[in-house]
Amino acid sequence: MIEAVDRLVSALAKLPGLGRRSAERIALRLVRDRGRGTTADLISALQGLESQVRLCSTCGAMTPADRDPCRICTDPRRETRSLCVVEDPSDIASIEASGAYQGRYHALMGRLSPMRGEGPRQLRVEALVRRIGDERIEEVILALNTDAESESTAQWLASKLAALGVKVSRIAYGLPVGSGIAYSDPVTLQRAIAGRMRM
Amino acid sequence: MIEAVDRLVSALAKLPGLGRRSAERIALRLVRDRGRGTTADLISALQGLESQVRLCSTCGAMTPADRDPCRICTDPRRETRSLCVVEDPSDIASIEASGAYQGRYHALMGRLSPMRGEGPRQLRVEALVRRIGDERIEEVILALNTDAESESTAQWLASKLAALGVKVSRIAYGLPVGSGIAYSDPVTLQRAIAGRMRM
Repeated sequence: MIEAVDRLVSALAKLPGLGRRSAERIALRLVRDRGRGTTADLISALQGLESQVRLCSTCGAMTPADRDPCRICTDPRRETRSLCVVEDPSDIASIEASGAYQGRYHALMGRLSPMRGEGPRQLRVEALVRRIGDERIEEVILALNTDAESESTAQWLASKLAALGVKVSRIAYGLPVGSGIAYSDPVTLQRAIAGRMRM
Repeated sequence: MIEAVDRLVSALAKLPGLGRRSAERIALRLVRDRGRGTTADLISALQGLESQVRLCSTCGAMTPADRDPCRICTDPRRETRSLCVVEDPSDIASIEASGAYQGRYHALMGRLSPMRGEGPRQLRVEALVRRIGDERIEEVILALNTDAESESTAQWLASKLAALGVKVSRIAYGLPVGSGIAYSDPVTLQRAIAGRMRM
């Protein structure tokens, strides 16, 4: 294979959800579209992402690079004694869109996944424990997904946080089991947050 | 959503095989890896592809940008009276790896697909007809995939080319039906090329 193609296929295949075959299809499309701006648009968008977006050092949400901590973490009108714990930063946007929660967030950046070799050290758990103390948090609401790995992550986290004397709840099973936060509609999320149960 | 993230997600979602949700996962990964070179590597690989790779104006294979026509089209040792017609440029590499074919190629850049609105005008058929005359081609070997759309593309092409007085064959059903050229191992491809049948 041509070296420049091979290099792009390798770079693409490192991204989540892309294997070599799908990376090859993308490379072919880009070569076919040569001169039509497809690759140039992609390069420009990647440069914009790298220069303009970062993760909030407090909650983990995506935020403009010049705004850290993020808009939610620095909003004085937000309720400050609860933290909503999610797996991914993108879950924050889903919950915000439901309008059912007025507090702040904490993204774990994943979940416990023995299959993929992801344990507690890959998650932002120490930072969470620190925030609970520093910000005098009274309630932690777990808004993880509902499949088996997320479920055991929630159980593990609940028992760990209980030792800190903080109230731990989880959003109700309004979500269809086996699905994820990002796929849920706002109404389902509203019900799930309203019906949260003590753990 | 942050504008720079939205822009990247839109650019990614235009690529084959990527929807908005998978594009969002990729954007998140890139923001998480910020400063670790993941995005920089991808940008550099894309720039390399754009500047160094093009499609051969004769056969449609991917070729270094400064080498058009490609290595295969200009190789004086190749047999010149047959053309092997494939759907995608990447199929050429699969057949080359089998070592069973010594002639030249012609990539259609797809197949007839009424479902996706792809008809004869989206394929490089006129260029194929021109080459058959200009290069005094005696045999056209159809090496298309074996699912229903490719099958009807082969039938349509065979009847169209028969009118030109050229011999048309297709590689044998050594391939498992419903699969594709790119997934086949070299031995299966060798058998399929050796057992090609007159159409």
